[in-house]
Amino acid sequence: MLLYEGKAKQVYSTENENEFIVYFKDDATAFNGEKKAQISSKGILNNKISTIIFEMLHKEQIETHFVKNISEREMLVKKVEILPLEVIVRNITAGSFCKRYGVEEGIVLDEPIFELSYKNDAYGDPMLNDDHAVAMKLATREELQFLRNEALKINEIMKEFFLKMNLKLVDFKLEFGKDSKGNIILADEVSPDTCRLWDVDTNEKLDKDRFRRDLGDLVQGYEEVLARMSN
Amino acid sequence: MLLYEGKAKQVYSTENENEFIVYFKDDATAFNGEKKAQISSKGILNNKISTIIFEMLHKEQIETHFVKNISEREMLVKKVEILPLEVIVRNITAGSFCKRYGVEEGIVLDEPIFELSYKNDAYGDPMLNDDHAVAMKLATREELQFLRNEALKINEIMKEFFLKMNLKLVDFKLEFGKDSKGNIILADEVSPDTCRLWDVDTNEKLDKDRFRRDLGDLVQGYEEVLARMSN
Repeated sequence: MLLYEGKAKQVYSTENENEFIVYFKDDATAFNGEKKAQISSKGILNNKISTIIFEMLHKEQIETHFVKNISEREMLVKKVEILPLEVIVRNITAGSFCKRYGVEEGIVLDEPIFELSYKNDAYGDPMLNDDHAVAMKLATREELQFLRNEALKINEIMKEFFLKMNLKLVDFKLEFGKDSKGNIILADEVSPDTCRLWDVDTNEKLDKDRFRRDLGDLVQGYEEVLARMSN
Repeated sequence: MLLYEGKAKQVYSTENENEFIVYFKDDATAFNGEKKAQISSKGILNNKISTIIFEMLHKEQIETHFVKNISEREMLVKKVEILPLEVIVRNITAGSFCKRYGVEEGIVLDEPIFELSYKNDAYGDPMLNDDHAVAMKLATREELQFLRNEALKINEIMKEFFLKMNLKLVDFKLEFGKDSKGNIILADEVSPDTCRLWDVDTNEKLDKDRFRRDLGDLVQGYEEVLARMSN
């Protein structure tokens, strides 16, 4: 049964009440849904790439919702309740950070930036700070501290992982969920839809900015990321 | 010599290189300068009200730039370099908080919200978190911790101060500056231009929202605040 349909994925219930199936669609959206397209095989690529990253993170002791890959476009995951927060980590200036503050793209930050957004399409996923999140009862102080620590730990692991394949991890968005025991674990997907990835030598963008900013064929970029992962 | 002209004030140098004169204008602006008006005697009222609040805060051991009142519209202040950050404290939901997150006005918060904006008119004074401020080198972690502690201390003092005159301190904006010794002290003004003040019994707004939202005569509201302070 279809439980939820997002911009790029669908979530289905299964016979096991503790597991969901995530189905990766070919839809691409940007600018809070203003720009849309169907990009053939994007869902397949994101399912493959997310699978590799979740498996890699699992080996590094990061708990995720990933159980196993079950088809080209389907992933079996643990049932979690997604927190209404987007967790963003930035290593190099890009995207909304540059737009919001008038900062040039491509500046390497001395230390990573941790940032939160309120998952709310009607209000354009507005940024918030810890006090706002607590006031709106979106999370407790302890949960926010955990999200920060976990996101920064994941950043270190992923930075190293991508650097080995000659990619810079510029920034990325994570979503976390609460499992049946109340543990907060990494959920959603980790792919070039949610990570900015630049080639170390050429700064070529191999992520969703190809679609957002018409920088070249999206599938070609994602295939390049997958190819480097598979070597 | 005129050193700086803002939306509601001018800053002049004096013969003493460690002191400035702040001149309070009658200009009212809202929505990042989109709505404008001249409101006769607003400057006089804000100078008087700010003077009373700075003197009150001084007695409560809060360091401010205030030296003395020198005329109807002029205040002598210590020379400081204003930090490029607006410090906002919220006790009750209102204003940009409600607009940004789709939250109802008037909800009393369990604990105050501390919020930072980057003082940058061209970008609409965008909100930021500590990591952003450090990345853009607007302040150090230690300075940000000081701003938070000092703003929350000032909030407690002002909440009590206004409650005695039957006013709720809904939220307010502060600006801080660095003096010649590198100390961070409260600067700018503290007035109904920068504080939301509601009558405890009727919730009548006695602050700049009267202008922003055409809720009644602004001068009458500010005179009411001054009258309650002077009792």
